[in-house]
Amino acid sequence: MDDVILRALAEDAPWGDLTSEAFVPKNAQASVALVARESGVLSGIEAFARTFELASAEREQHLRISDGTHIEARAADGDRFASGDVLATIKGNARTVLRAERVALNLVQRLSGIATLTAQYVAAAEAGATATGAKAPRIVDTRKTTPGLRRLEKAAVRHGGGHNHRFSLSDAVMAKDNHLAVLAARGITIGEAIRAARARLPHTATIEVEVDRLDQIAEVVAAGVETIMLDNFTLADLHAGVALVAGRALVEASGGITLDTVADVAATGVDLISVGALTHGVRSLDLGLDVGVFERPLST
Amino acid sequence: MDDVILRALAEDAPWGDLTSEAFVPKNAQASVALVARESGVLSGIEAFARTFELASAEREQHLRISDGTHIEARAADGDRFASGDVLATIKGNARTVLRAERVALNLVQRLSGIATLTAQYVAAAEAGATATGAKAPRIVDTRKTTPGLRRLEKAAVRHGGGHNHRFSLSDAVMAKDNHLAVLAARGITIGEAIRAARARLPHTATIEVEVDRLDQIAEVVAAGVETIMLDNFTLADLHAGVALVAGRALVEASGGITLDTVADVAATGVDLISVGALTHGVRSLDLGLDVGVFERPLST
Amino acid sequence: MDDVILRALAEDAPWGDLTSEAFVPKNAQASVALVARESGVLSGIEAFARTFELASAEREQHLRISDGTHIEARAADGDRFASGDVLATIKGNARTVLRAERVALNLVQRLSGIATLTAQYVAAAEAGATATGAKAPRIVDTRKTTPGLRRLEKAAVRHGGGHNHRFSLSDAVMAKDNHLAVLAARGITIGEAIRAARARLPHTATIEVEVDRLDQIAEVVAAGVETIMLDNFTLADLHAGVALVAGRALVEASGGITLDTVADVAATGVDLISVGALTHGVRSLDLGLDVGVFERPLST
Amino acid sequence: MDDVILRALAEDAPWGDLTSEAFVPKNAQASVALVARESGVLSGIEAFARTFELASAEREQHLRISDGTHIEARAADGDRFASGDVLATIKGNARTVLRAERVALNLVQRLSGIATLTAQYVAAAEAGATATGAKAPRIVDTRKTTPGLRRLEKAAVRHGGGHNHRFSLSDAVMAKDNHLAVLAARGITIGEAIRAARARLPHTATIEVEVDRLDQIAEVVAAGVETIMLDNFTLADLHAGVALVAGRALVEASGGITLDTVADVAATGVDLISVGALTHGVRSLDLGLDVGVFERPLST
Amino acid sequence: MDDVILRALAEDAPWGDLTSEAFVPKNAQASVALVARESGVLSGIEAFARTFELASAEREQHLRISDGTHIEARAADGDRFASGDVLATIKGNARTVLRAERVALNLVQRLSGIATLTAQYVAAAEAGATATGAKAPRIVDTRKTTPGLRRLEKAAVRHGGGHNHRFSLSDAVMAKDNHLAVLAARGITIGEAIRAARARLPHTATIEVEVDRLDQIAEVVAAGVETIMLDNFTLADLHAGVALVAGRALVEASGGITLDTVADVAATGVDLISVGALTHGVRSLDLGLDVGVFERPLST
Amino acid sequence: MDDVILRALAEDAPWGDLTSEAFVPKNAQASVALVARESGVLSGIEAFARTFELASAEREQHLRISDGTHIEARAADGDRFASGDVLATIKGNARTVLRAERVALNLVQRLSGIATLTAQYVAAAEAGATATGAKAPRIVDTRKTTPGLRRLEKAAVRHGGGHNHRFSLSDAVMAKDNHLAVLAARGITIGEAIRAARARLPHTATIEVEVDRLDQIAEVVAAGVETIMLDNFTLADLHAGVALVAGRALVEASGGITLDTVADVAATGVDLISVGALTHGVRSLDLGLDVGVFERPLST
Repeated sequence: MDDVILRALAEDAPWGDLTSEAFVPKNAQASVALVARESGVLSGIEAFARTFELASAEREQHLRISDGTHIEARAADGDRFASGDVLATIKGNARTVLRAERVALNLVQRLSGIATLTAQYVAAAEAGATATGAKAPRIVDTRKTTPGLRRLEKAAVRHGGGHNHRFSLSDAVMAKDNHLAVLAARGITIGEAIRAARARLPHTATIEVEVDRLDQIAEVVAAGVETIMLDNFTLADLHAGVALVAGRALVEASGGITLDTVADVAATGVDLISVGALTHGVRSLDLGLDVGVFERPLST
Repeated sequence: MDDVILRALAEDAPWGDLTSEAFVPKNAQASVALVARESGVLSGIEAFARTFELASAEREQHLRISDGTHIEARAADGDRFASGDVLATIKGNARTVLRAERVALNLVQRLSGIATLTAQYVAAAEAGATATGAKAPRIVDTRKTTPGLRRLEKAAVRHGGGHNHRFSLSDAVMAKDNHLAVLAARGITIGEAIRAARARLPHTATIEVEVDRLDQIAEVVAAGVETIMLDNFTLADLHAGVALVAGRALVEASGGITLDTVADVAATGVDLISVGALTHGVRSLDLGLDVGVFERPLST
Repeated sequence: MDDVILRALAEDAPWGDLTSEAFVPKNAQASVALVARESGVLSGIEAFARTFELASAEREQHLRISDGTHIEARAADGDRFASGDVLATIKGNARTVLRAERVALNLVQRLSGIATLTAQYVAAAEAGATATGAKAPRIVDTRKTTPGLRRLEKAAVRHGGGHNHRFSLSDAVMAKDNHLAVLAARGITIGEAIRAARARLPHTATIEVEVDRLDQIAEVVAAGVETIMLDNFTLADLHAGVALVAGRALVEASGGITLDTVADVAATGVDLISVGALTHGVRSLDLGLDVGVFERPLST
Repeated sequence: MDDVILRALAEDAPWGDLTSEAFVPKNAQASVALVARESGVLSGIEAFARTFELASAEREQHLRISDGTHIEARAADGDRFASGDVLATIKGNARTVLRAERVALNLVQRLSGIATLTAQYVAAAEAGATATGAKAPRIVDTRKTTPGLRRLEKAAVRHGGGHNHRFSLSDAVMAKDNHLAVLAARGITIGEAIRAARARLPHTATIEVEVDRLDQIAEVVAAGVETIMLDNFTLADLHAGVALVAGRALVEASGGITLDTVADVAATGVDLISVGALTHGVRSLDLGLDVGVFERPLST
Repeated sequence: MDDVILRALAEDAPWGDLTSEAFVPKNAQASVALVARESGVLSGIEAFARTFELASAEREQHLRISDGTHIEARAADGDRFASGDVLATIKGNARTVLRAERVALNLVQRLSGIATLTAQYVAAAEAGATATGAKAPRIVDTRKTTPGLRRLEKAAVRHGGGHNHRFSLSDAVMAKDNHLAVLAARGITIGEAIRAARARLPHTATIEVEVDRLDQIAEVVAAGVETIMLDNFTLADLHAGVALVAGRALVEASGGITLDTVADVAATGVDLISVGALTHGVRSLDLGLDVGVFERPLST
Repeated sequence: MDDVILRALAEDAPWGDLTSEAFVPKNAQASVALVARESGVLSGIEAFARTFELASAEREQHLRISDGTHIEARAADGDRFASGDVLATIKGNARTVLRAERVALNLVQRLSGIATLTAQYVAAAEAGATATGAKAPRIVDTRKTTPGLRRLEKAAVRHGGGHNHRFSLSDAVMAKDNHLAVLAARGITIGEAIRAARARLPHTATIEVEVDRLDQIAEVVAAGVETIMLDNFTLADLHAGVALVAGRALVEASGGITLDTVADVAATGVDLISVGALTHGVRSLDLGLDVGVFERPLST
C-alpha cells in the first residue's frame, strides 16, 4: 500500500507545494475532519490515514522537527455511514495536511465508491433471492481493476459485502471461449483438455469454464470442474443451466449484469454473480475534507 | 508509461497464466481485433499496444524464441469511432495475447472513457457558449486522477478536446479558502499575501485564487492574479463575477458542474470550466477484444 | 527473471571486472560451451542464456559497439543429459562472457540440481507405487525456497517431473497445528472453522488441513476439505490414514521424507508427497564452462 | 538486508495470508521460540529477527494498531549451539508471526547451514595442519553464492570461522587459465602482462593468478603477485608448489576439496583453501519454530 | 532526498566499511562537529543530518541495538557563517559516524558552495543596480544541475538569495533559437506560433522566448510573452533591449555572465539574470568534520 | 549508467517537454554536432550518446514509430581535443534531440571537466618529477565524488591519465587519525592493531595508514602496510618521509595539493598524490550543441 501512496504523493508534488510554501507559515497547524457528503460504505480509511502519515514523515525529514501529525479514524472499513458523518479527524502541520489532502481523498473516495456500489448489488441480490426462496448468491468482482490498485479495490469489494473472484491469472484456471476454440481446432474434447490440465496444475488450483450456450454444459460438468460460468445467458437459460448443473459445480452468472437486473439473476438460483462494474465504472463517493487552520508554533 | 504497464502485468500474473499454460499450445498464434462496442473518442491506444509489446518481450525472454507479435493501430488517440469500428489488430503468440488482454483493455477502456466524457463536456460547453455568442470556454481537468495514472489520464482529457489544468502542486499556485483563512487569521490582506508570494515564486509560475463570494473578487483581482476561480457560484453570480473581473484575469468556474449544467455555465462568459468528474467518476468504455486463435508453429 | 539476474550481475561486479579489463583485449572474442560434468536433468537454461544477453546489453552501452553475443541452447529445460554433453554454446565478446560466467553458472547449476533431485524422487516414488500396484503419487515442493528465486525453483521442480504445491500464502489455505490450536483455545470445532473460512474465501481457493494423529482425520474430512496432510506419520499410520479418508479428499504425506524412504511412502497409496529437501538442501550440479578465447576484432 | 527480506515477504504473500485471515483472530498473540533441532553454528539471527520486524511494520500500516512484536535473540551469529537450544523468542501478533515464519526460517536455516559447514572445514583443516606442524590455513569462500544473498552468505562463512575471498569481480584481480590463454595467443609473457596490469590498477588492488601445473609457478611468482592459486593439484604437487613459492606469495589450494580431503590439503602448508561447497551445496540446518498461540486482545 | 542519500551510502560501502570494522570497537561512540574552514552560506544541513540518521538506521538493523545517534543543527540553511563556526554536532556510534562522514560532507560542501556563490552574485547584482538606481534584478539558476540533485541544488540557490527559473522542461515554455529556426523554415511567424502554443498549453503555463538580436524583440513582445531572454547581448544592447520591451514582458539577461560582469548587467535594468555557473562550475565549500572518538558501551 | 541517465531524464521532464510539443512538429528531424568551445580531454562521450538513445527509446514507445536516432562519436573518452573540434554528431527526431540535450551536455561537460583537470595535474606532476629525476607519481582521486556519479567520475579521472584510489569503504582499508585515536585510547599499539586487522581481512585487501607527523612513520611501516599516507606534510617533511619509508611501502602525499604545488610535491619522490579537487571543485567544460533543425517526415 505504501508503494501506491508514495508514488501518488510524488506524482502530485515532484518538487514541493508552491501554494502552501507561499501562503502557509511553516509551523501553522491544521485540524481536519473527513466528512461524508453522502451516505455509503467506507473503504480505504487505512490508505487515507497512511497518506497523511507518509506525507508527515516526508516533511519531518526536511524540517528536522516533529510535525506531530495525529490521525484518528472514527469509522472502520466496511462501516456504513450517513451524509454528515465524521469519518476521521487529523491534526497536524497545515502544510503536511494540505499537501496530502488530494491524494488521500482520491483513494478513500474511489474505494468507498466501490464498497458502496458493491453493497447495493449485494442488497439487490439478496432481495431477489429472498423473493424466490433461493439462497442469496455471492456478488464477486473481476480483474477489471485499476492498474496498480487491485489489492485495495478487491478489499473494497469485501468491505461492501461482496466476495473476491481469483486475484490474478496465476491463482486459478478460467477457460474462456478462446481457449475452447483452440481445443476444438485441434480436435480435443473439453473432457480430454480438463483431464490434461489437472495432470499439470498444482492440486491446490481450481478450474472454472465459461460456456455461452446451454448445450455446452453437460460435457463441461461431466469433465469435472469446480465452477461453470454462464456468460450472457437469458434469465430463462440461467434457470435451465442451474437445473442442468444440478449442484455438481458452482454456477456463476456473468455478462452485463446491472443494479436493475441483479435481483432477477439472483432469483435464478446461481451461486455467484460477477460484476465488472464494481471496479470498472465506479463513481468516486463524495467525501470531503473540512479544514480548520490555525496558527500555533509546535512545541519542538 | 512502461512502469505503469509492467506493474499491472506483474499484478495480473505474478507467476504465470495457469489457464493458457494448461489449454493453449506454446506456439499457437492468435489474431486479435480491438473492436468498439459503443461509439466514443479514443485514448490509450499507445498504452494498449505497448502492453502487448511488453508482454511479448517478457515471453521472449522465457522461451528464447521470437514470438513475432505485430500490432497495428487503425486509429489514433483523439479519433472518434463508432460502435463496430476496428481500432487495432494484433497478431502474435496466443499465450502472449491472452496474458496481456485484460491489462491492455483496462487501460484503453478507462482512458477512452475519459476522452469520450471530455468530448461530451466540450461539445455541450461550445453549444452553450454559441447560444449566447460567448467564446467557448475551455473544459479543464483537476488533480482528481487515479493514483499513478495522472499523466495518461491528463493526456486522455486532451484527446477528448479538453485542456489540462496544472499537473501537480509543484507547477502553479492555487490558493483556496483554507489558505485565505490562514492569512485572515494573521491579519494579512490578500494583496499583501500575493505580493509576498510573487517575491518568492519562480517568475515562470502563475497564481490562481479561489473565491466563494462576489465580494471577494475586487481585492483578488486588484492584487494581480493570472486566474480567479469562482467556486460553487450560481449562474447569476457567475455572470456578475465575469463582469467584475472585466478581463483582468482568466475566470474559472468550478464546483459540481455536470453535463446537464455545463452549457449554462459556458453561457456566462467564463474562460475555464473545471470538471473533476472527467477523471473522477468515469465509466470505462466498452471496447472488446475479438480473438481468433489458430494453431501454427512459429517459423523460429 | 531479469530482475534476479540484473541484481546478481550488479552484486558480482559493482564497478567493473578488474581482471578482464587488465588482461583481456577489448575486442577479443570467446567461444564457450556449457558442458555437463555429471548426468542430470536440465533446468535454468533460459536463465543461463539470459545472463549472457543481459551482460552483453550492459557492455554495448558502455562500448558503443555491438559485441555480437550469440547463444545457442542445445537442450531444453526438462531434458536429461549425460556427463560430457554440451548443453549450450555461446560466442561473443570475451570480456562479456567472462563477466557473466559465474552468475550464469550459479543459476543453471542450482536449478539443474533441483530438477535432478526431483527426478530421483519421482522415479523412486513411481517404483514404490508400482511395487504395490498403487497409483504413483505426485512429488510436490514446499515454500522452503531460496529468497527471491521461488518462481525459478518451482519451475525446476516441474522440469524434474515434480509438481508444485501452492506458490504462496495468498493462493490456497493450509491450516497447520498452530491454527488448529487457536481454534481449540477458543472452543471452536474444526468443522465450524472450515465453514466460516469457506464463507469468506474466494470460491476459487482450496483448503488443506494438516493433522498429526489418526484420530483427527474423521472430523477434518467430514468438514469438507480438498486435501488433508498427514504430518510425520509412520508408514502404518499412512496406510490407515488413506483408508480412513477413503477418497473424500486428497491425502498428502509430509515430514522428513528422504530418497531412502519415498518409495515406501508412495506404496501407502497417498496422493501427494511433499519434500522440502527438493529446494532446501540441494547440491548444485557440476556444469562447467569450457572457454576458448581467441582474439579477433569485431566487424563493427 | 531489508531489500532481500522485503522481496521474500512479497514473494511469499503477494496479497495476504489466506489461512491466517481465515483461522486466526485479528488480535490473537503468539509466543514463539526458535529452537535448534540439531547442533551447529548460528548465522542469520539478525536477518531472522528483522523478518518479523518488517512483517510487523507491514501489519501496523494495515491495521493502524501497534502489534507489539518483541524479539529477543538468545544467541549471536557465530555462536555454537546444541540440539534443543532456544536461539530466540518472539512475542507478537499471531498473524504477523505466522506470516513471517517461513521467510525467517528459510534465511536462518540456510545461513546457519553455511556457518556450520564452514566450521567443520575449519576444524578439519586445523587438525590436518596441527598433525604436521603446519600453520593452519584459512578456509575461504568463493563467488559461488546464491544470487542476491552474497553479502549474507559471506558473513555466514565468517561466522563459521572461515574467511572471505574477494567479494566481487570489482575488488581484486584473479587471472585464470582463460586469461593466460589470451596472453599466450598474443605472445605476451605473464610477466609483461602483470606489469601492464599493475600500471593500470588502483594501488589498493591485489593480484592473484591461477596455475594448473608446477612448471607455471616460477614465472608467475617472479612477476610479482600477492597470491598464487594451485588449481586441482595433487597433494604431492601442492607440497612441491609450496616449496617453489617459498613464501614469496600466498599459496591457495583450490578445486574439489571436500571435508574428507581438507585435512590432507592443510598439511601441505598452503596458506588458503578455497571451498565452493561452503555456499554452493549447503544443506539448510534444521531449526524450527515452536509456536504457542494464545488469544488476548492487544492493549491498544 | 532519502533516495539520493541511500544511493550514495550504498555507492560508498556496498558491503561494509573494512576499516572501521577492523579498527573501531562495535560500541565505541564518537562526538563530531561540523566546522566551517572558510566563511559562506549554508545549504544542505538537512541532507547532512539525514545522512547520519539513515546510516544509523542501517546499523540498527544489523546490530539489533539502538546506536543512539543524536544530531543537533546549530545553523539553518540560508544562514551565513564564518570560518571556525560550528554548524552542527553529532553524537553517536563511532562506526556509524565514520561510515556516513564522506557522503554527508560531499552533500553539504557542494550545496553550501552553491549557496555561497549565489550570494556573491546576488550581492554584486544589487550593488550594480544600486549604483544606477535600477531595481535589483533576480539572480536565477538554470537546468545545468548535477544529474539527480536538481531539487537540492535549486534549493541551495534559494538559500543563497537567488531565485529559481523553471524546474524542468515540463513546467514552462522556453523557446530558443532552435525552435524559432524550425518555425522560420516552415514560414510561420513567431506571432502565429505563440498563439498556436497558447491554444494548447495549460492556462497555468507561461512562455519565454530567447532572442539573439535587437531586431527580434518587437515581434516577440507583440506576440505576447511573459518573459523575453536576451542571449549574449552586449551591455549596450541590453540597455536598448530593456527600452524596447518597455515593461511589456520580463527581461532576462543570459550568456556567460560572471561575478566580474554581473554588476554591469544589473545596471542595465533587466529583471532577471540567469547564471549557469551557479550550479555548473561550483567549488565545494571547505567544511570539515572534527571527530572526537571515545569508547563507552551504549546503555542498551 | 542507464540508471543515472534515466533518473536525470525523468528529473528534467516529468511530464513532457512543453516547448517542443508546442513549437516543433512531430516528425521534424535535427542534425546536431557536439562541438568543443575550448580545448580539453574528453570523458563521458558514451554517457552523452546513451542519453540520446534512451530519450529516443522513450519516444518510440509513445509514438509507435522509429525515430531513427543515429549517433556517431568522432572522438573517444581519453582523447584530447581543441576548441572547434566536432566530438560527435547526432541525427534524429528534433523533439528527441531537444529533450535530451541538456541532460547529455550536463554529463559530458562535467566528466570532460574532470578529465581535463586531471590531465593538467598529471602533466604538472610529470614535469616536477622530471626536473629532479624522480619517477613521476600517480595522480589519484578520492571519494569526494558527486553522489550517484562515482563510477563515471572515477572513469573520467582515468581518461585524464590519473589513477583511481579505492572505490569505496568496502574494497580497501584506510586508517585515518580518528581510527588511530581510538586505538591509542585503548592502549593498543598500531602494530598490534594492524596484525589484528590482517587476521580478519580478506587476503585480497590492502591496508593504508594516514600519518600526520614524521615520528609516526617508523611504527606504521614496521607494522607492515601497503601504503602510508603523509597528510598535510611540508615539502621538506615529504622528502624526509620518503627517505624514512625507504621503499617498504608506497608513499601517498595528500592534503590541499593544487595545480600550483603539485610539481614540487612530485619532486619529493612520493609514489602517489591524491587530489580531492579532481572531482570536488571541477568546472564543467564548455562543450556546446550546434543544432540544425530541418523538417522532413520520417520514412516510417
